[in-house]
Amino acid sequence: MSAPSVSYSITVRLEVPAGGGAVSQLTATMEALGGSVTALDVIHSDTDRLGIDVTLSATSTSHADEIVQELRAIAGVTVGKVSDRTFLMHLGGKIEMASKHPIRNRDDLSMVYTPGVARVCMAIAENPEDARRLTIKRNSVAVVTDGSAVLGLGNIGPKAALPVMEGKAALFKRFAGIDAWPLCLDTQDTDAIVEIVKAIAPGFAGINLEDISAPRCFEIEARLREALDIPVFHDDQHGTAIVVLAALTNALRVVDKPIENVRVVMSGAGAAGTAILKLLLAAGVKNAVVADIHGVVHAGRADLVDAAPESALRWIADNTNPEGLTGTLKEAVHGADVFIGVSAPNVLDGDDVAAMTDGAIVFALANPDPEVDPAVARQTAAVVATGRSDFPNQINNVLVFPGVFRGLLDAQSRTVNTEMMLAAAHALADVVTEDELNPNYIVPSVFNDKAASTVAGAVRDAAKAAGATAPHSPSAP
Amino acid sequence: MSAPSVSYSITVRLEVPAGGGAVSQLTATMEALGGSVTALDVIHSDTDRLGIDVTLSATSTSHADEIVQELRAIAGVTVGKVSDRTFLMHLGGKIEMASKHPIRNRDDLSMVYTPGVARVCMAIAENPEDARRLTIKRNSVAVVTDGSAVLGLGNIGPKAALPVMEGKAALFKRFAGIDAWPLCLDTQDTDAIVEIVKAIAPGFAGINLEDISAPRCFEIEARLREALDIPVFHDDQHGTAIVVLAALTNALRVVDKPIENVRVVMSGAGAAGTAILKLLLAAGVKNAVVADIHGVVHAGRADLVDAAPESALRWIADNTNPEGLTGTLKEAVHGADVFIGVSAPNVLDGDDVAAMTDGAIVFALANPDPEVDPAVARQTAAVVATGRSDFPNQINNVLVFPGVFRGLLDAQSRTVNTEMMLAAAHALADVVTEDELNPNYIVPSVFNDKAASTVAGAVRDAAKAAGATAPHSPSAP
Repeated sequence: MSAPSVSYSITVRLEVPAGGGAVSQLTATMEALGGSVTALDVIHSDTDRLGIDVTLSATSTSHADEIVQELRAIAGVTVGKVSDRTFLMHLGGKIEMASKHPIRNRDDLSMVYTPGVARVCMAIAENPEDARRLTIKRNSVAVVTDGSAVLGLGNIGPKAALPVMEGKAALFKRFAGIDAWPLCLDTQDTDAIVEIVKAIAPGFAGINLEDISAPRCFEIEARLREALDIPVFHDDQHGTAIVVLAALTNALRVVDKPIENVRVVMSGAGAAGTAILKLLLAAGVKNAVVADIHGVVHAGRADLVDAAPESALRWIADNTNPEGLTGTLKEAVHGADVFIGVSAPNVLDGDDVAAMTDGAIVFALANPDPEVDPAVARQTAAVVATGRSDFPNQINNVLVFPGVFRGLLDAQSRTVNTEMMLAAAHALADVVTEDELNPNYIVPSVFNDKAASTVAGAVRDAAKAAGATAPHSPSAP
Repeated sequence: MSAPSVSYSITVRLEVPAGGGAVSQLTATMEALGGSVTALDVIHSDTDRLGIDVTLSATSTSHADEIVQELRAIAGVTVGKVSDRTFLMHLGGKIEMASKHPIRNRDDLSMVYTPGVARVCMAIAENPEDARRLTIKRNSVAVVTDGSAVLGLGNIGPKAALPVMEGKAALFKRFAGIDAWPLCLDTQDTDAIVEIVKAIAPGFAGINLEDISAPRCFEIEARLREALDIPVFHDDQHGTAIVVLAALTNALRVVDKPIENVRVVMSGAGAAGTAILKLLLAAGVKNAVVADIHGVVHAGRADLVDAAPESALRWIADNTNPEGLTGTLKEAVHGADVFIGVSAPNVLDGDDVAAMTDGAIVFALANPDPEVDPAVARQTAAVVATGRSDFPNQINNVLVFPGVFRGLLDAQSRTVNTEMMLAAAHALADVVTEDELNPNYIVPSVFNDKAASTVAGAVRDAAKAAGATAPHSPSAP
């Protein structure tokens, strides 16, 4: 059973007899059931009764329910309102719009709005690049989803996706000072999404695509990159790829193997898997092998013989597997240096990991249940990483997307390319110093305050070096 | 010449000789040229020289330039950087995104974002109405424009429209606590705009259409109202109509005429004019006459004989002009009780106003130059209003749109209808008490803190009475 988590945290209002051992019986009951009591506040007290609010972390919603049921069974205890802290935090939403300037009087109004604003509008009409100077465009990112592949929850639609997009916007601000606003689209039609994002682009300096299912996400991203003069970044693909490359770079330092010499076996050929593969190849990996649910991808596989030349799987077959492996994932992992899973729980076991080379690296990123139990993998592998926060080496996009966009926006970049992503990955890897580097610390903590700024600097420099930045606007009037 | 305005305010850095009368010569020069000095700050001082920042209001950009040129001509004075306060206020944009909760540590992150957010997403997936409780939807409004009719500036496009939309968002927050975000669309195709707004609707509780040109704005609004389950409000039409009706209600109180008995002559049959007309008819006006650039609208006019039955002008011809007037605007105004202009400068003169009935009411709303000089009109008319802030009785949408949306959002209204708009107008009129009412005070000040809340309450009640509100979501988990 996993540990109690604040994300399953409830606050229970209780009435208990003032005398006797009711309170200690309560906390003992909660802890005996595996709950973790994090706060106990007495709300009111008289000679007979105590009113207390107990906050406790459980391991799941049903676990929390079970604890509350047991509390009701204690003699003399009355259970009142049960509040879920995560839901309380979401009431009314997590973000808001704020005005930068007070509007106290007529003078303020006449500069923020009419008539003063008209001169600013005319300046932009005469020189549209001035929108990056005189409007929110310079620091704004649209977080766009169609709700088709939200977290691991699947196709839950645009309204249900909104809490994730609000959270993403909050993280953009927290880690990079970026103003992001969620746009949850009530369509899953590729053409429509492309047209909508093109149309809303004038007010934004970047587009963050989020939780759009494959293969539509590839086409949507490619067409938008072609059409727009602002960067388009699908975080599920590229954010993941960048943090994986950063982690792999440091893991290879730990085991002292050059990236050119290792055999990397991947499980999963979806959006994240394909993006990771492409970035690893760009970073110097020579020998990558990809397996999907049908086994190792190779040109002779039945479902690939007739595949369209532009299909993603065909691209993988043409650009990986130099030794022409066939068969199962487990067979391919035998003797491999690196395993990277972005697929499904428990596709490997301890024996598979033991059959890898000495100094094996295992990234088991399926969430919440990894491709192989990380504790088991660690028995033979030199470095193990997961997507979870309760094991060492969490591969978390939060390490990447705020800094990447900060750098793109600071450079006023018109695009985002492979060089910028490589720069981001290497910068993130370098946030972990030689002194700090060890098998259980290959990526910095999410709250490491150097992560976003270091990534931003590297991306900004790469964007400027690529000549991808917007022309300078003339000096201010 | 109009008065100096803070919306044409500049700050000039000057070096002047420390001794002698240079400073007083400076201020005398600025004031002789019609500038208004509002601040004078000494930045540095030594035995020889003073550095000062002078802030002054001019009447126009060219007027400000002229003043600066004259300053350069004063012996011993060096003019340094000239800053435009309105442009300074716009640098980097006027609004931002803010997070409601701090993200200080892993616990915060696990509730705002993954893994905790997943439970909130699933709750909404199971009951989509919960989006109004657990997300920003409940308090968010999209401010949507295509940049086709921005203020009086015309079709300046989406980027140049953005400063107005940001200002609008700032006003939504300032006067009604609403979180609005601008969406400036890079298309002026009616079908495309309808599809885009439909698609982005899930994350918003209301749509404020803004500065979209007629006649496209009519079709866009009508189709969106039909398609969406949130209110769609075109402020240029309905905000204007509501504040005009409020002002007219109080002006008629001043002159003691019932709305059913007056003849109202309107100049302008565009978006605002049509909306005003429809609301006045709904409010009880029996005798309205509309003139456009071709004169009085009547069924027999050459351009109307063959007009399509659904055309806006045909609708006007069929629903106005009970006496069958023909001819020019000036002829129609003769003997009228009320003139409402939403058209062009100087279409009437003092003689025209003098030919109206006793107790004439003149609303000359063309901006910045009204249909008739308000000072001239006031010589014979009992009540005069304009769109300008430098005359009494400013007809300003800011009095209306924040409160209207506050009421709609508080009621979780799925629509906005004529009854709600009438309620808004009458509530706004009633903000001016009997004691306060006089010919120069028929609408409250923009900064009257009762305006938005009073309008909001009336609209909320009207929405609830209309049964237009969203179903209640089940109680919180």
